[in-house]
Parts: sequence; structure tokens; C-alpha cells
Amino acid sequence: MVKLEDARRIIAAAEVKAKELGQPMNIAVVDEGGNLVSHARMDGAWIGSIDVSINKAFTSRAFDISTQALGENSQPGQQFYGILTSNHGRVMVFAGGVPLTRDGRIVGAVGISGGSGEQDQSVAEAAAAAF
Amino acid sequence: MVKLEDARRIIAAAEVKAKELGQPMNIAVVDEGGNLVSHARMDGAWIGSIDVSINKAFTSRAFDISTQALGENSQPGQQFYGILTSNHGRVMVFAGGVPLTRDGRIVGAVGISGGSGEQDQSVAEAAAAAF
Amino acid sequence: MVKLEDARRIIAAAEVKAKELGQPMNIAVVDEGGNLVSHARMDGAWIGSIDVSINKAFTSRAFDISTQALGENSQPGQQFYGILTSNHGRVMVFAGGVPLTRDGRIVGAVGISGGSGEQDQSVAEAAAAAF
Amino acid sequence: MVKLEDARRIIAAAEVKAKELGQPMNIAVVDEGGNLVSHARMDGAWIGSIDVSINKAFTSRAFDISTQALGENSQPGQQFYGILTSNHGRVMVFAGGVPLTRDGRIVGAVGISGGSGEQDQSVAEAAAAAF
Repeated sequence: MVKLEDARRIIAAAEVKAKELGQPMNIAVVDEGGNLVSHARMDGAWIGSIDVSINKAFTSRAFDISTQALGENSQPGQQFYGILTSNHGRVMVFAGGVPLTRDGRIVGAVGISGGSGEQDQSVAEAAAAAF
Repeated sequence: MVKLEDARRIIAAAEVKAKELGQPMNIAVVDEGGNLVSHARMDGAWIGSIDVSINKAFTSRAFDISTQALGENSQPGQQFYGILTSNHGRVMVFAGGVPLTRDGRIVGAVGISGGSGEQDQSVAEAAAAAF
Repeated sequence: MVKLEDARRIIAAAEVKAKELGQPMNIAVVDEGGNLVSHARMDGAWIGSIDVSINKAFTSRAFDISTQALGENSQPGQQFYGILTSNHGRVMVFAGGVPLTRDGRIVGAVGISGGSGEQDQSVAEAAAAAF
Repeated sequence: MVKLEDARRIIAAAEVKAKELGQPMNIAVVDEGGNLVSHARMDGAWIGSIDVSINKAFTSRAFDISTQALGENSQPGQQFYGILTSNHGRVMVFAGGVPLTRDGRIVGAVGISGGSGEQDQSVAEAAAAAF
């Protein structure tokens, strides 16, 4: 179970990493049902990334995989090509969504959007590690 | 301008009031452009209210009015009946969305969803007062 | 045919009337196909009314009627009750959309949103008269 | 802040350039919140490009980047591949959307649609330069 206090700890860790990279981010945490627990947009972060961060978190929990790995599998010619059309536009297939694991079980996910794919991924991993 | 730290102060005030009422809430804050700054779902709050809270905040800023007052004006026979169809399903016409005002100008809004209309409104007013 | 220069003359007339009323408005003009020719948001007008103004114009041309008259016919118990569900949320059933007529034929419409129903209607009529 | 008079100056510059190229265009200007300030469809411009122009402007402000550059980054195999699925179909990943900058800060965007990618981009740049 991802409680609001868990989400806040995850978001705080993401903010620390984002500031270290000098790149403001949108940060979203979803629970086991894929539903939003909390979102924060750091000052100056892209407004288009609000939706992207929430949907990266959703996607990562929805398929129990990082969005980076899903992205590799959904390029043209790959096995999941076209999956981004499903779920009413909520599937994000690029880096920044990472599952949250407790006792070996995925119970939620974090989604980061606001920088390059590499930056988003790095912040997402730091955030998930704080769970 | 509604900064993330403003949103957090507003959300904290909402949580205090919600706990006082014994009713967990979804709390959302949007900026002048109607875009989400931050959202928090208190433990046990309805998942259907995630979207409602964000859209109450959007609506309140979009029309510079409380969603309660807009609701009164959009009942059958009233001047804005049917407005809830606009803006792609984002217009909420019941209590819980309140504008955020600074120096006499509306610069954002807070949206609360999770209880009765009366409870949502009461939490939203306490939240907006903390801005 | 509603040309861009027609739309501009209509919008200019709407602005004059809106300033006279002291209420900033969103103003939209559509052509015979119901497609947008031009839109203008006066400084300070509601952002939620962007969509409403465009859709009032669409609705007025789509059914060749003012949205005020359509509204009267689509209240609960009336013959068109529920019509606002059609056309993917684009049907507006409150005052502010008025057809544009040339040589007795409806060739477009203007949509106004930003004030009370009475204000919107009054600006829309002034705008349509400039066609 | 992008005022209506700013938007009109930008649109006028776009029209001059579009006429020079002999290609009628849809021209849209959004403000800092990504919300439409004004739109104009030149006589004969594609009706399918109404939505495209508005969404190019939205996208450019939403991610603080030209849609041309975003397009390069969202091809298969690139870091933002799939971003066009986000934001409910409003993300455009081809040339014609350009940010509006004042005092080194992005405060809005212009979106052009109606010709080839090269033409749209050229008109968008001429338009943004008039801000």
C-alpha cells in the first residue's frame, strides 16, 4: 500500500535529485490500482509534463515495468508496437516511469517528466529508492 | 503566481480541516493558467474524486467563480445550464472549488472532493484562506 | 461565405459592445461548415470561455438557431432535452450563440462567452448585426 | 503576459509571411498557461489545420520547445517517442509551433498550420519575431 506519507517521501527524494541535476520536474506517485496518490510540479517545470508524469506512473504500474523498458519493446517492429494507443492515451513509452516494490511485490509506481529521458529516468530511480 | 510551496501550504490547511471533519479528501491546486501545481489524496479518500478535485480547481479558475456558485447558475432554467458539457468534461458544477486571490486578482484555485458538498466547500474555504 | 475580414468586423463590433458593458469576452466566428474562422479572447476574459465561445458558435450554425432558443427547447421536459450530449460535447444550450445571415440564408455564426447570459446575448446580437 | 494586442501583431506578421509564400494558414497564439488568446484562419486555409495550429501553439508552450525540435526527439528510437499520445491528443510533433520569449522567459507560443512543414516553420518564426 502506498500511503500519502510514502508518496511525499518519494516526491521529496525526486526533488533532491532534480535540484542536483538543475532541472525542475513533474513528479507523480500512483498506488496499486494505478490511481494518483500525489503530484507535485516544481516551479518552472513544463506544464505539458503534468499529464506525462501522471501517465508514466500509471503505465509503469499498469504493466509492472519501467516505461523505459516498455519503450524498447514498443518501437516499430517490436512486440508491443502500438500499445500506446490503448488505455485512452494514458500509456507512455519513454523513460521516467518506475515501479514501486515492497517485499518483492509491485504496489505502485512513480512517474517523472520535465527533462531529457536520461534525466527523467535518473530522478525516477532516486525517487523509487526512497520508497 | 502559485508556487509549489504555496500549494503545499494550501494542501496542509485542507488536510487539517478534513481531519477535523473526519473525512479524507482529494486536494488539488491549479495556477493562473488552470494547470495543476499539486495534488494529494489523503489515505482512504475516494479514487473517483482524484479527477473531480483537479477539475473543480480547473473550473473555479476557468470561470473565476466558486464551483458552488457556478452550480447554482447552471441548474435547469438558469443562465448557465449545460455549461458542464464544455471544456471536454472538465467543468464541475458542485461545491468544492474556490478561487485563490492575491492583491484582489484571481491567480489560481483549489479543488476539494471526497465528502458531502458542504464538507468539500468547508475544506476548500479553509484551504484558500491559507494562500 | 464568412471571410476572415468578415470575422474581424464581427469581432470588432463584439469588442465595442463588451467594453460598453465593461465585461471582457471570448468571441468566436464560424463559417457555413461550423468551422472556426477566428477567435479572440479580450484581456481578462475567462479561460474556460474559450471553448464555450467556439462551441456556442458551432451550435448556433449546427442547428441554425440561437443557443438561447435552443436552450429553451432543451430544458428538462422539453423536446430537445439531452441534445447537449450529442456532437462530442460541442453543443451549448445557453445564450450567446447567434447565426450569421446573408440574403436570408444562414452562412455562419458568432459565439460569445464571458459574462452573464444576458450580457453574452447582447454582445452576440451586436456582433451578428455587423456582418 | 501575452495580451490580445500582442496576439494580433503576431498574427499580422504571420499573414504577411504566408501571403509572401502564397500559402493561406491557420494562425494561433497561446499565453503562458497554454490557453488560446487568438486564432485566425486565412481565406482558403485547411479546416483540419484549425485544431493543428492551436495544438502546435499549446505544445510549444507546454514543453518550452519548438514543435520541430520536439518532433526530432520523438521519432522512433528517440528519447520522447510516444509523447504525442499524452495531453489528450493535443501534442503536435511536427514543425510550426514556436515559443514566444520576453526578457529571456517563455511566456506563450505561436502555432502555424496550413502548408508544408518548411512553410509552417518559416511563418511561425516570422510571427514569433513580431512579439
